Amino acid sequence: MRIVSYQDVEANEAVPGVVQRVVIGPEHGAPHFAMRVFELQPGKSTPYHTHEWEHEVFVLSGLGVVRRENGETPISAGTAVFVEPNEIHCFTNSSNEVFRFICVIPTTTDGPSQPACEIPPSQPQS
Amino acid sequence: MRIVSYQDVEANEAVPGVVQRVVIGPEHGAPHFAMRVFELQPGKSTPYHTHEWEHEVFVLSGLGVVRRENGETPISAGTAVFVEPNEIHCFTNSSNEVFRFICVIPTTTDGPSQPACEIPPSQPQS
Repeated sequence: MRIVSYQDVEANEAVPGVVQRVVIGPEHGAPHFAMRVFELQPGKSTPYHTHEWEHEVFVLSGLGVVRRENGETPISAGTAVFVEPNEIHCFTNSSNEVFRFICVIPTTTDGPSQPACEIPPSQPQS
Repeated sequence: MRIVSYQDVEANEAVPGVVQRVVIGPEHGAPHFAMRVFELQPGKSTPYHTHEWEHEVFVLSGLGVVRRENGETPISAGTAVFVEPNEIHCFTNSSNEVFRFICVIPTTTDGPSQPACEIPPSQPQS
């Protein structure tokens, strides 16, 4: 049994302003899927991309937006997001606080990191 | 893409005082693993049991204890717990507030529910 506070796990900066911690993964003996904790600084985004594997996300704190091909939706603590395989997506911090969420992926199909969100979230109406 | 607040998901009482919500599962198209949110009332436990599949747990709020064959450990918000396949375990709420955590399981090996924790947590030293 592995018991760890996410804050004690080494943090890797996936893209500037986006930190990832693998709290449970293959290196800990997990046979099927990995649990990561992401922290996004204000205004920062994960890559706007698509891949063959799914995401299962749960928002821990802060306010953000999940973007997909046909729109975007505000999300906050307690929101779960299922990103289907091959569905284009990114997550953006829309507040002035850290935006923190869990993202679980299967461990047999993960691929390399990709560039940061290529399509910024839409601007507020003026 | 499925976007849902866990509070809007139907709650099922797995054992008395232990509520489970499947926020992402096979019924939503998830191909490999399911994300559940558990809420335990004060003093309540999940079953003390073992099974062939793993758990990946993340504590959202409250205070609890995870018990295994060789001991028990206090856990709180921000703690991740990897329960290995075939490892005996249970989770108990050790506080007066709701104890809430995520538990992710593979969806191809889940089994029936089992009776509530058969070995209560050890008593505090007097």
